[in-house]
Amino acid sequence: MKDPLVIFTPSGKRGNFPVGTPILTAARQLGVDLDSVCGGRGICSKCQITPAYGEFSKHGVTVRDGALSEWNSVEERYKSKRGLTEGRRLGCQATVQGDVVIDVPPESQVHKQVVRKRAEAREIVMDPATRLYYVEVEEPDMHAPSGDLERLVKALSEQWGLVHVEGDLRTLQMLQPALRKGAWKVTCAVYHGDGLGPARIVQVWPGYYEGTIYGLAVDLGSTTIAGHLCDLQTGAVLASSGLMNPQIRFGEDLMSRVSYSMMNPGGHKEMTRVVRDALNALVSQIAAEARIEPALILEAVFVANPVMHHLLLGIDAVELGQAPFALATSGALTLWARELDLDMHPDARIYILPCIAGHVGADAAAVALSEAPNLSDDLVLIVDVGTNAEILLGNRDKVLACSSPTGPAFEGAQISSGQRAAPGAIERVEIDPESKEPRFRVIGCEIWSDEPGFTEAIGAQGITGICGSGIIEAIAEMRMAGLVDGGGLIGSAAQTGTTRMVEDGRTHSYLLHDGSAKGGPRILVTQGDVRAIQLAKSALYAGARLLMDQLGVDAVDRVVLAGAFGAHISPKHAMVLGMIPDCPVEKVTSAGNAAGTGARIALLNSAARREIEGTVGRIQKVETAVEPRFQEHFVAANHIPHKTAPFDLLRAAVPLPEPSFNTGGEDGGRRRRRRG
Amino acid sequence: MKDPLVIFTPSGKRGNFPVGTPILTAARQLGVDLDSVCGGRGICSKCQITPAYGEFSKHGVTVRDGALSEWNSVEERYKSKRGLTEGRRLGCQATVQGDVVIDVPPESQVHKQVVRKRAEAREIVMDPATRLYYVEVEEPDMHAPSGDLERLVKALSEQWGLVHVEGDLRTLQMLQPALRKGAWKVTCAVYHGDGLGPARIVQVWPGYYEGTIYGLAVDLGSTTIAGHLCDLQTGAVLASSGLMNPQIRFGEDLMSRVSYSMMNPGGHKEMTRVVRDALNALVSQIAAEARIEPALILEAVFVANPVMHHLLLGIDAVELGQAPFALATSGALTLWARELDLDMHPDARIYILPCIAGHVGADAAAVALSEAPNLSDDLVLIVDVGTNAEILLGNRDKVLACSSPTGPAFEGAQISSGQRAAPGAIERVEIDPESKEPRFRVIGCEIWSDEPGFTEAIGAQGITGICGSGIIEAIAEMRMAGLVDGGGLIGSAAQTGTTRMVEDGRTHSYLLHDGSAKGGPRILVTQGDVRAIQLAKSALYAGARLLMDQLGVDAVDRVVLAGAFGAHISPKHAMVLGMIPDCPVEKVTSAGNAAGTGARIALLNSAARREIEGTVGRIQKVETAVEPRFQEHFVAANHIPHKTAPFDLLRAAVPLPEPSFNTGGEDGGRRRRRRG
Repeated sequence: MKDPLVIFTPSGKRGNFPVGTPILTAARQLGVDLDSVCGGRGICSKCQITPAYGEFSKHGVTVRDGALSEWNSVEERYKSKRGLTEGRRLGCQATVQGDVVIDVPPESQVHKQVVRKRAEAREIVMDPATRLYYVEVEEPDMHAPSGDLERLVKALSEQWGLVHVEGDLRTLQMLQPALRKGAWKVTCAVYHGDGLGPARIVQVWPGYYEGTIYGLAVDLGSTTIAGHLCDLQTGAVLASSGLMNPQIRFGEDLMSRVSYSMMNPGGHKEMTRVVRDALNALVSQIAAEARIEPALILEAVFVANPVMHHLLLGIDAVELGQAPFALATSGALTLWARELDLDMHPDARIYILPCIAGHVGADAAAVALSEAPNLSDDLVLIVDVGTNAEILLGNRDKVLACSSPTGPAFEGAQISSGQRAAPGAIERVEIDPESKEPRFRVIGCEIWSDEPGFTEAIGAQGITGICGSGIIEAIAEMRMAGLVDGGGLIGSAAQTGTTRMVEDGRTHSYLLHDGSAKGGPRILVTQGDVRAIQLAKSALYAGARLLMDQLGVDAVDRVVLAGAFGAHISPKHAMVLGMIPDCPVEKVTSAGNAAGTGARIALLNSAARREIEGTVGRIQKVETAVEPRFQEHFVAANHIPHKTAPFDLLRAAVPLPEPSFNTGGEDGGRRRRRRG
Repeated sequence: MKDPLVIFTPSGKRGNFPVGTPILTAARQLGVDLDSVCGGRGICSKCQITPAYGEFSKHGVTVRDGALSEWNSVEERYKSKRGLTEGRRLGCQATVQGDVVIDVPPESQVHKQVVRKRAEAREIVMDPATRLYYVEVEEPDMHAPSGDLERLVKALSEQWGLVHVEGDLRTLQMLQPALRKGAWKVTCAVYHGDGLGPARIVQVWPGYYEGTIYGLAVDLGSTTIAGHLCDLQTGAVLASSGLMNPQIRFGEDLMSRVSYSMMNPGGHKEMTRVVRDALNALVSQIAAEARIEPALILEAVFVANPVMHHLLLGIDAVELGQAPFALATSGALTLWARELDLDMHPDARIYILPCIAGHVGADAAAVALSEAPNLSDDLVLIVDVGTNAEILLGNRDKVLACSSPTGPAFEGAQISSGQRAAPGAIERVEIDPESKEPRFRVIGCEIWSDEPGFTEAIGAQGITGICGSGIIEAIAEMRMAGLVDGGGLIGSAAQTGTTRMVEDGRTHSYLLHDGSAKGGPRILVTQGDVRAIQLAKSALYAGARLLMDQLGVDAVDRVVLAGAFGAHISPKHAMVLGMIPDCPVEKVTSAGNAAGTGARIALLNSAARREIEGTVGRIQKVETAVEPRFQEHFVAANHIPHKTAPFDLLRAAVPLPEPSFNTGGEDGGRRRRRRG
């Protein structure tokens, strides 16, 4: 008689196995992805499966009662002690008795897909570099002496097929008590490295370790540091936390930090200390939030721009402040936590993504990992908006990258009523094209300013200023309402027919909100604000345009706005301002903090590390700082949306009146002064 | 016409090369061992060679004037600036012009043999793991951005054929200033690892580094710590230094240190700190002696017994105090200096030899490396005499190892007038078989006590006691002079006919020296001293005998006495005492501090590390602590020289009178008491 047929779903893998074969064994032989930490001893319950009964015409099989063995004592004990979902069995205990269909639920798969909040560019499939293994170790024999470590390594090889495993010094220090406390049974966390070097035992727990191991993905930005604490087995994000980069006190932007280092001998060491202290504050904050021991964080991934990358590593970033912007290293790095003085597990492995170029860092590499332009069929432009914008353009044939110095205007700096994106900041703006009256929304309040209950809703917090996304919308709305002309000049009350236009010397401002009656601020969009945004958006556009030149294209198929700030930009308004090239508005999407997502992917999927290392090597770099055409593109992009590019798709979608307020006012006046 | 013939001596390698080929190039192509750090740029002068002219019938070649090119400007400049021995040329500058014989002097060979002070078991051939490489690195190009490290690695690959080289974090921190200061020319110290992992850049100097790099070989003993500072390029020992192991305050012998750790929670951490502090004192002392920066020590090798091995590593040694004496690890270890808090180059690689068993440590492995029993044609017994003796027995077919707890008597402890081997200690003893009068020598004085000028020569230092080698000689001489019988009883004045026998209760002592007239000590050999030495020597003999049983032999071909103490033992006296099995006295040699020599071999020759790792795996371990026959052998060996073993070879060489002093005295008395 033929051996019973075992069919696994969802993989569809099938095979015949002798009666009595445990389901876990069958799964392993077929290469079915079924998890196990205890190696089939009925302890970990990671191999839970659901047998399906009845007729399956699709599979050509009928599963009868009794297709699996009766519950044995191990299974019974497990169920009574810890509970087991109805219909579930332990794959290592239940054995094949007849033809059977076995469903492997997602949580029993090693390479499970991580559940994510939004439709994102790519799925994260679990493939962590650090994994848990339960082993039973031979006891020492004085007649055939060998080290406890050597016997543990042998057990990992024999019971798990792990070859070339080594122990760190700390492993040796903890090993002997753990083995004896666990009566020669221990759970090891093993870091698998890059496949070239040996795997290494990071931690040893007596007996079966029931706890969780954690990983931390960190986006180390110039202004903010954001971290996500993940479960290294399920991939779940357990806590997220952020704090300001305390290096701000050495300079708001990166170049002023480089200058600090140039002017102050040893200054880079101080900045390194400060950023590592901040990372430790983040670790402690996020561990407290998740109520875990920081020592259980066994891996971390860092992404950062080149200057932060170097300062984190204790490398003077002075070379990044001058051509040819040489990186100390462009490659990916794997370090020990203690090499960076980080307060997590001292042997936690820190993976730092590769840098693309002197101005395009590991953060941009993380964006490339998350958004995968190299896998895109259509031509995608990815813009990570920040003080320094990173720009990627490409498809599966070729990917180009550059950075562009947009300055801090998009983050609310250099704006008259500008502020960081925080409660009280105006973040959304609409201006009625007829009445020229504005309405807006404020961070921390869901109600628009012209809706009932708004005043009560904002309450004591009040309206304090305007943040980056708010100023972009305000100026774009002013342009659409005919209050700002293509050259960026704000019209007067007479020219626009609204008393919201306030005279300010030779220029005019638009009064967005007047809180002065209640002691609050008057929030105006000034001519200076428009000029600051024009400079920033011109730099962004010029960078993107330079890459398009390099690729020989005049249009892109889609645009992705990345970065914490990019997530809040309205595509339509960005397009009206001419921040990005013309493109169907529905093809402009936001990727949120793509750099952070990239860090998380690299944390949870070690193959992704090898992937991005390869991708970065193939990305073609363009250095904007020394490219003469960048300057040309920058000047032409000063116009709103653009002096020469037609922006036909945009014009078809939104009204773009073309008044001209240049009557010898601001710009004319300047010209006259120059002449005189 | 045929290309000129180039013959290298002493290798005899030969080949034809086109006119104009640099001698260094010809050497490399033929695989001739010719050193170079600068890669043929005429900077380092490591490739110096001596052309030989005239007729060489042996080689069938005539070398004419003009067989090498004229001196070029590089060679001239080098010679005028730094000098060049008459007849020498720079191999990278001188080119082939006709048939030529080229001698490669020893100092121009990478794998040169280290000059050693005495005929030792094996030569040391240089093959250091850390080497210097001078490279010229491509300058950064912002249009093809890559890290400075990546271009350095490329240069090492292209200019030296090094593949898979990585940089440590510290390399990254020092790299950029070094490259710029050296105008893109740097010298790197590269650690080559075990051939499995990547090579790693440890240090980068701007330009050509003219200095030396150093290695430290350390024998970490229970009582003393000894270090040798070596030049990693020539192998020369530049300084040697030693200090007491400060752990002595936790216990004289190893087991009392293990007990300290058992009785005092955290005690092992204290012992680790203390021994690491002592190692740092040694480093600082030896660096001062050699007038070098400790940061230029780029490698160190440690050998130690298992307890010291574990305590150095920060592992609680408690398991080594009880059966089954499980080591935390038996394998060799490679660590960073900073992992052990050592004040040398922070990335210096520390290599620790493997341990053989729970009682037979890395020090015994080092003895095996130095004395190479596994390569011996005849059967050799190697005894490393100390508080705990390590014993190796074997030949190229098989090697066995055990340890034996001899106790501290051989080091002068537990001896009535015992003291450490230091100035003032009696170290050599002769007793006239007729007159029974002694003469002796004292450490620090070359004159025998019965020679003219002795009193003046010892001067104020005086005669303070008797050291280990002194007590061994004293008792053996007493045995040969008929003052001690085979059972170990000291005879009375009446029995022996000399007034030097002093009554002491029921037993007698032999007065070796009476300094009381000058206020100095009376130095006696007491019955207790003989008993203590009998216990120690029985343990030593029993261990050796156990290994002989295991191998099925009754005699060994030769005996090697190792250990700092072993170097001072007179083979004849050791044999008379029966410390070692019977053997022709001329076949008993001393290897000095073989463990220290083994450490030095592993430091200077990285292939030796792989060799001893393999050898240790094949050594068969015997655990004396639980072997019943050990006890039998121990009892039988109490007799001097032995109760049952004939010691015929010894008896043929020296007089061994057989008096019996047992007349109901000490031993008889004891027996009576038991009966009563």
